[in-house]
Amino acid sequence: MLTVKTIPELRKARMGLPSPVGLVPTMGFLHHGHLSLVKKAVEECASVVVSIFVNPTQFGPQEDFGSYPRDIPKDLELLERLNVALVWIPETGEMYPSGFQTWVEVDSLSRRLEGDMRPGHFKGVATVVTKLFTAVQPEKAYFGQKDAQQSVIINRLVLDLNLPVEVVICPIMREDDGLAMSSRNVYLNPDQRIAAAVLYRALNVAKQEFQNGENDAERLREIMLETIHAEPLAAFQYVSCANPETMEEHSGSFERILLSMAVKFGNIRLIDNLVIGK
Amino acid sequence: MLTVKTIPELRKARMGLPSPVGLVPTMGFLHHGHLSLVKKAVEECASVVVSIFVNPTQFGPQEDFGSYPRDIPKDLELLERLNVALVWIPETGEMYPSGFQTWVEVDSLSRRLEGDMRPGHFKGVATVVTKLFTAVQPEKAYFGQKDAQQSVIINRLVLDLNLPVEVVICPIMREDDGLAMSSRNVYLNPDQRIAAAVLYRALNVAKQEFQNGENDAERLREIMLETIHAEPLAAFQYVSCANPETMEEHSGSFERILLSMAVKFGNIRLIDNLVIGK
Repeated sequence: MLTVKTIPELRKARMGLPSPVGLVPTMGFLHHGHLSLVKKAVEECASVVVSIFVNPTQFGPQEDFGSYPRDIPKDLELLERLNVALVWIPETGEMYPSGFQTWVEVDSLSRRLEGDMRPGHFKGVATVVTKLFTAVQPEKAYFGQKDAQQSVIINRLVLDLNLPVEVVICPIMREDDGLAMSSRNVYLNPDQRIAAAVLYRALNVAKQEFQNGENDAERLREIMLETIHAEPLAAFQYVSCANPETMEEHSGSFERILLSMAVKFGNIRLIDNLVIGK
Repeated sequence: MLTVKTIPELRKARMGLPSPVGLVPTMGFLHHGHLSLVKKAVEECASVVVSIFVNPTQFGPQEDFGSYPRDIPKDLELLERLNVALVWIPETGEMYPSGFQTWVEVDSLSRRLEGDMRPGHFKGVATVVTKLFTAVQPEKAYFGQKDAQQSVIINRLVLDLNLPVEVVICPIMREDDGLAMSSRNVYLNPDQRIAAAVLYRALNVAKQEFQNGENDAERLREIMLETIHAEPLAAFQYVSCANPETMEEHSGSFERILLSMAVKFGNIRLIDNLVIGK
């Protein structure tokens, strides 16, 4: 496994990799969710590249860029075991050189849900993902369904900019109690950690009601909200039943819908989602 | 010479082209300026691709998208003679499919001069050029110095987005009286056509004064403006002495500067520029 920092080093190493090349973009502090993406990539591709970059431009000024967890030595140890060909760990100045001023933005999809809560977040994501793709030039790229809206945005970006890459979205990995795996879970204190299972519980209560015949989006939002409210340590930011393609909030009956939510435990913000219906 | 319309057709044809591949992006209605880019590309590359696409997103609502001159049969005839391998003529719906919403924007460089006069123009240019690059995947791409600010913006875009393409900027081609070649020149009536030589004349008066020792940017702007004012059919939009890298308007003395201007003759808007100094 080779580790590189700069784009010229990356390009040189990339040239020697057998095709198809799969890219797994990460912000490091790898957990089983990331590793499931890497395993999938190793299964499907002749060579796998993992990038580790905590991208400053997708964090808001009040967000946790500074305190986002990092552990490169442990990340490398985990990747070493998985038959990864190349790990790219760029410095911030490599990705955003002096005078940097070019941004990629996916318009309306970026304004809803997470984008509404985190202005500029998806502009940072779209820009860095474009750069990761143009630098690595992978045939396939792997992202997690955990960031459901991000997945839709990246698919749109790839289509709109004719990027020659196939985007593969992998299922959410969960702890035993259903909590979606996230690098940020490490910051939950023991009580918050227990309480955090409420996100998945709320999604499942809504799913159960749907399976029992409840088909009104407004009613499902209420059901999820009631479940969140019953957990004293949880403060919801939003609870959504949205069109899974457009991310527009839905009202009335539906065939297929994206249930999603953002919930805070103290300063720690968690998200989760579930697609229900056909 | 092969002509293709869709991106899948383009990709298939591209695969068979010997490297390096040079791209000359155009809006068609080709003149000697375009052809000088094509000739340069043919000299330097094993295969040359020319794209012809009048890009709607770089025209403002009050601009001349509808009336922009088009003559594909003549364009193809001209290119046929120049050893061009592939001509790509996409439909608007191919470049901007239903639901298109991803934009590339080069921030501060796009706000000055032409960008100030034509809001959104460089957002359309940056987006379409990114798409032309990702679709064709050329090793080299050729643009004209006629659009000086566009050249700087495209260089910035390529650097910022790590696009694996070398940008080559080619000199302005001029008519006998110095008028910079432009597809829009065809719309000048005979009097306007004669008057239009004033742009190059103004640039040269400033250059002459500079060579005589005048080194104050403000004074050079005045000199160019006086020359334009002396031509009754010409209505200036701006006259500029700007930093050739940042496009910021300059004041005081300088070592190297971009003289540029936009001047209207009736509804026809012409631009021209000259870099002076070291």
